[in-house]
Amino acid sequence: MQTLGCDVAALNTVQFSNHTGYGQWTGNKVSAPEITDLFQGLKNAYLDDFDMMLSGYVPGAEALEAVGQIAVELKGRAKKAPGSFFWVLDPVMGDNGNLYVAKDVVPVYRSLVSHADLILPNQFEAEYASLLNPPERESNRQSLTPLLRLLSEVKIQDMASLGRAIQVMHERYCIPHIVITSVSLNHPDHPDASLSVVGSTMTSDRRARAFKIVFPAIDCYFSGTGDMFAALTVVRMREAVWNTPGLSTAESWRSDDAVDALDLPLAKAVEKVLASMHEVLTKTCEAMDIGLRRRLGETQVNGGVDDKKIRLLKSKAAELKLVRHVDSIRSPKVQFRAVRM
Amino acid sequence: MQTLGCDVAALNTVQFSNHTGYGQWTGNKVSAPEITDLFQGLKNAYLDDFDMMLSGYVPGAEALEAVGQIAVELKGRAKKAPGSFFWVLDPVMGDNGNLYVAKDVVPVYRSLVSHADLILPNQFEAEYASLLNPPERESNRQSLTPLLRLLSEVKIQDMASLGRAIQVMHERYCIPHIVITSVSLNHPDHPDASLSVVGSTMTSDRRARAFKIVFPAIDCYFSGTGDMFAALTVVRMREAVWNTPGLSTAESWRSDDAVDALDLPLAKAVEKVLASMHEVLTKTCEAMDIGLRRRLGETQVNGGVDDKKIRLLKSKAAELKLVRHVDSIRSPKVQFRAVRM
Repeated sequence: MQTLGCDVAALNTVQFSNHTGYGQWTGNKVSAPEITDLFQGLKNAYLDDFDMMLSGYVPGAEALEAVGQIAVELKGRAKKAPGSFFWVLDPVMGDNGNLYVAKDVVPVYRSLVSHADLILPNQFEAEYASLLNPPERESNRQSLTPLLRLLSEVKIQDMASLGRAIQVMHERYCIPHIVITSVSLNHPDHPDASLSVVGSTMTSDRRARAFKIVFPAIDCYFSGTGDMFAALTVVRMREAVWNTPGLSTAESWRSDDAVDALDLPLAKAVEKVLASMHEVLTKTCEAMDIGLRRRLGETQVNGGVDDKKIRLLKSKAAELKLVRHVDSIRSPKVQFRAVRM
Repeated sequence: MQTLGCDVAALNTVQFSNHTGYGQWTGNKVSAPEITDLFQGLKNAYLDDFDMMLSGYVPGAEALEAVGQIAVELKGRAKKAPGSFFWVLDPVMGDNGNLYVAKDVVPVYRSLVSHADLILPNQFEAEYASLLNPPERESNRQSLTPLLRLLSEVKIQDMASLGRAIQVMHERYCIPHIVITSVSLNHPDHPDASLSVVGSTMTSDRRARAFKIVFPAIDCYFSGTGDMFAALTVVRMREAVWNTPGLSTAESWRSDDAVDALDLPLAKAVEKVLASMHEVLTKTCEAMDIGLRRRLGETQVNGGVDDKKIRLLKSKAAELKLVRHVDSIRSPKVQFRAVRM
């Protein structure tokens, strides 16, 4: 976000030695009162003039409520000046089969969704939510959608039902913008080993304007893709909105009803985000084996193979190489374009 | 540091709503056991393969001891592989007349200096240290030097005695590299309203090789210059050392005795750091009045002038505009060159 020009204030909700994908960590969570107190400090010092907020990983329900309260307060204050504050809610619950948060976090996200301007659930968040309703659980490929399933009560089996679920979400919760990251549903248009991102910005009468962007999956385990997607989406959404005359003062940056799905700033934003991600993931994957082999070589020289150490070194190798590939963040080449659902 | 290509792990020693220069803040310090525990977590996950460490603001003596212990451990481990770990110790005690830390932090810094590879005291840290010895206190202009005064026991009144103090430091504490930031001592070579930075890398027999870089002072109050100087020095020092064949595997990256003061990687590094700083400070100062007037205008419209609010808005206006001027960080134009003391 900084390398793309944003002045960012970080309110850490944890200070851990490493992310929980490693399976072990030290450090502490920041408590709900501490989060509230930090925001009060920002207000006291007139440092609360934010125009966007991204909420990400919050490991406990009370802390998530405190974070939500900050967003709701900033949203409320911005009512006088439409477009002056935009909340991107990434309902971080987990990734790649690991749940990061306590189970009681899920219903809190549910209660907060109607206050957000844009939500960004990933595939695992989808699958985990489906686990909450075991009887309805489908095979991995078919059961996706997070919150979506919880919120829309539409059974999602294909791109058409995914589209209906998005429509229900706009209608029921009045969420202006939705992006479902990493959708893997079979479709005649989708080549094998492809993924897609599906997004929509609703119209004034809450009709979905959905687009999808199909891109090749990379056969590699990565860590941090959800955070990268969310952070870039914040910046690119703002940029796309600022490039559209008058839109930055529209409520929730909602485009005129006449704007086609493929011309939405959200679609333009996600195209750029995916371009950056595809470049960084490709380069991270290319470097992964080399780095891992070097570290494993050292391990073996120093005496035997240690399963736990190998697992931890693999976790490190899976970290996205963001700093090294900053040019891909700043100036990505857009290859994958939004198409109609 | 990241925009210059460093993969950085931050171990926060506080989580405050804002820095203490605002005179008010909320949030908590991280305790000494928490700091130690976080480092243990990094070790447990094989995430402790650092080749440099920068220690900055640590508000309490026990926490500073914990931070120092991390550096000492990493230094000890690197003894087998000279040059594989380099500790930059910025003895952050305060700036511009404000003490940031508890008084008992000062002697802890004193005990840690002999373990560091490079220390970076600023002018206030100098003046504050001199306050500890009231009988010896001089006028502001003459009494500078931090730690230096404490450590060298040389009375610093001019550039010559400053040079002697650096010599004593190298000899007594075996600190390989020293940079004194923001020196303002009268000297025939120095124009009015100039400042200088004085640095030295010792030889194998602990002789100082001192250089100074004189640059114009900017008549503006800034916040964060010490942190910016320290962070950039870490990256630029590494870069300059890596550009010198063989030096990255020399103990403490100490240059051959034959290398002249003006050819030291430390001198090259500080030239680049000051170039970036001069550009960012100039641009921050240019924008400061405009931003402040706009915010003050809003204040007056909303009913009267409030001294406290004005003070807080001035603090915000004094924050360095780093993100906006990232090109000055990445590719500064070097204007001010190292000269002999």
